[in-house]
Amino acid sequence: VSLARIGSELRCQCISTHSKFIPTRHIQDVKLTQSGPHCKNVEIIATLKDGKEVCLEPTARWVKVIIKAILDKAQASAESQL
Amino acid sequence: VSLARIGSELRCQCISTHSKFIPTRHIQDVKLTQSGPHCKNVEIIATLKDGKEVCLEPTARWVKVIIKAILDKAQASAESQL
Repeated sequence: VSLARIGSELRCQCISTHSKFIPTRHIQDVKLTQSGPHCKNVEIIATLKDGKEVCLEPTARWVKVIIKAILDKAQASAESQL
Repeated sequence: VSLARIGSELRCQCISTHSKFIPTRHIQDVKLTQSGPHCKNVEIIATLKDGKEVCLEPTARWVKVIIKAILDKAQASAESQL
């Protein structure tokens, strides 16, 4: 398991990216990985609520909108706890 | 491993959050997890290049700036490949 994990971190994770809109409510989490020696691309991988992992297109507008929506939700929740 | 993973997904991952600035160059990836039945908070976990995992404060301005920087890098890289 450990080796597989190390292996997967030494190369790009995404062969292709999904550019069609996925509603925020279907998304559990979104991971943004910086480009680097392991991969020249920024990679964005969403884990859906059904457990599927999907590579998102980092330049797609809706991807930015979803990330902003998650951040805004955190902000709203923090403010409601004041 | 599988059980541990399932276990960790059924509760909040962050006991406390780090609100002090971490330079983007030290960050490998950033994972944004939506709030839900498992946890009432939006959680943002950064994996640093040295392998450490750090919970970031989702409402901190610099956290948003770092996420935007990663997205902007993807955009710039896509445009340079045109």
